[in-house]
Amino acid sequence: MASVQSEIRIKVPDLEALLARIFVRQGVCSDNARILAANCAACERDGSVSHGVFRIPGYIDSLKSGWVDGNACPEVEEVGPAFLRVDAKNGFAQPALATAMPRLTEVASSHGLAVLAMRDSHHFSALWPDLEPLAQRGFVALSMVSGLACVAPPGGNTAVFGTNPIAFATPVAGSNPLIYDFATSSMSNGDLRIAARQGHAVPLGTGIDSSGALSGNPADILAGGALLPFGGHKGAAISLMVEVLASALTGGQFSSEVDFSGHPGAETPKTGQLVIVLDPARGGNSGFAVRVASLLELIRQAGQQRLPSDRRYRTRELSVRDGVPIDSATYANLVALSA
Amino acid sequence: MASVQSEIRIKVPDLEALLARIFVRQGVCSDNARILAANCAACERDGSVSHGVFRIPGYIDSLKSGWVDGNACPEVEEVGPAFLRVDAKNGFAQPALATAMPRLTEVASSHGLAVLAMRDSHHFSALWPDLEPLAQRGFVALSMVSGLACVAPPGGNTAVFGTNPIAFATPVAGSNPLIYDFATSSMSNGDLRIAARQGHAVPLGTGIDSSGALSGNPADILAGGALLPFGGHKGAAISLMVEVLASALTGGQFSSEVDFSGHPGAETPKTGQLVIVLDPARGGNSGFAVRVASLLELIRQAGQQRLPSDRRYRTRELSVRDGVPIDSATYANLVALSA
Repeated sequence: MASVQSEIRIKVPDLEALLARIFVRQGVCSDNARILAANCAACERDGSVSHGVFRIPGYIDSLKSGWVDGNACPEVEEVGPAFLRVDAKNGFAQPALATAMPRLTEVASSHGLAVLAMRDSHHFSALWPDLEPLAQRGFVALSMVSGLACVAPPGGNTAVFGTNPIAFATPVAGSNPLIYDFATSSMSNGDLRIAARQGHAVPLGTGIDSSGALSGNPADILAGGALLPFGGHKGAAISLMVEVLASALTGGQFSSEVDFSGHPGAETPKTGQLVIVLDPARGGNSGFAVRVASLLELIRQAGQQRLPSDRRYRTRELSVRDGVPIDSATYANLVALSA
Repeated sequence: MASVQSEIRIKVPDLEALLARIFVRQGVCSDNARILAANCAACERDGSVSHGVFRIPGYIDSLKSGWVDGNACPEVEEVGPAFLRVDAKNGFAQPALATAMPRLTEVASSHGLAVLAMRDSHHFSALWPDLEPLAQRGFVALSMVSGLACVAPPGGNTAVFGTNPIAFATPVAGSNPLIYDFATSSMSNGDLRIAARQGHAVPLGTGIDSSGALSGNPADILAGGALLPFGGHKGAAISLMVEVLASALTGGQFSSEVDFSGHPGAETPKTGQLVIVLDPARGGNSGFAVRVASLLELIRQAGQQRLPSDRRYRTRELSVRDGVPIDSATYANLVALSA
């Protein structure tokens, strides 16, 4: 008899509350727990499932290992009239960003631009949730974060870069903000692991095997090999920029410097993050968001079926209306973890 | 008897003076002529030959057509303490950037960051020369410029984007700055034209033919087809960002809005450009440039043979020592144009 996997639907606020209890259960202070739970629930809600409840075991293991401090109190410094630094104090990036956010938006409004340089931060989620509130307030924003070394430079044989995601958000008149958020590697580590588990090949050149040869076998890429950047030398240049801006400039660690060895079970990368915020009203165009909307319309008319974040907003609409779908076994496990 | 193509070597200042005379001959004012000549000579000197003297006929035809104003006096506005706008007044981007540069660097020093939003500008050169002076002064800088619609979005059949280059520059301790500068299309338009002329195929997916089908035939891509972005949907997202930041935000035209029809012979795109400047000393790291140098060393050790700008600096060294190599016929033509 085949087993039937059943699914429950949970309202977003209930999922947030459930996840917050799990974080508190692991000793995370209630403010940080609320922020992490809202972030993780938003990913699950929007179909960014690789950054949703799937990550809860990784959060727990990292907290248990003592590698990351769930109670960190981030410290914000203003090192220029529109240049903020935040020391995440070995805590998660999201509470550090939340701490800096009121001042960041205040400065971006009054000056027309602002930069936030975050260091000693653990980013274990998607990047788009960091930028969406900024774009909703009318700002254009760019962010990048370095990770765990698992990506070799082109022609190389050793991992140096993390999957080093980059995200960009812009307001769009009459619509949700457009936000893209992607790994600068050919594939995310999560997708590579899933392909390996399912025994699927990946396109040749997704990564290299342990000898440095191009490989399309996810198991070989994972076993002593490395991913490659997306888009050849161009993608590699962007990944390099992420290390320079998110790690060197912020004072955080490079992806290649993250060292879990003293903390068995740790999974979260401790590096840095950069956020650049611009007020488009200061540019040369009073109708900025209308212009962006017309550009997107042109791109759709030219035949691109799906623009960045289209699918996310569609999934969100369904999740908000009907509840977030989670399979019953996962849900039962979350409930147990929260008790 | 085979013809032998001979080559002359010309000192960089002599090449600059020769090119300046050509621009002046076309009615460009001497200040603008000097700036354009230095820019074009620098490209030729460093082996960026597709932006070197090869472009002189395009400059001349565009000036002759009345499409671009060689005598434009750019106007700089400060719309925030670290937010500059410059209206290039239908002139070339380089004189507009030169006009804004003293204030841009002053503000970046005093505030730790600065943004320049340029509009109604013709960018007909490489982007790296715009950023190199900033990185030489210790700044990190990012720039992007939109162009002429010749790139279709993925899955699409109509060109919407320009080749939309993006450039990034960072200081490196004990070395020249690292600067990358690349088209966000799969290939530059110039390289595509060269492949078509030589009858070489390009990789399948470099572009589409007029029916929208993937093509590796440069002639088909040029004849009613379009290039595609580099790196699939990710590269397309970056190209979209370039339109948003370099055109919508600055108040410039989108790549798809450039309309030469009233100016036969015109070649230069009139769009916009964004420059973001950060002072890394304001980040969390006092030894920024040393950290970047250590990162680059790590990347070389991991096996990447050539980093962005390596070849350019090597070529520059030879050009400065021995003179810039130019084939005799081209040189004779330049001399004639300057007379």
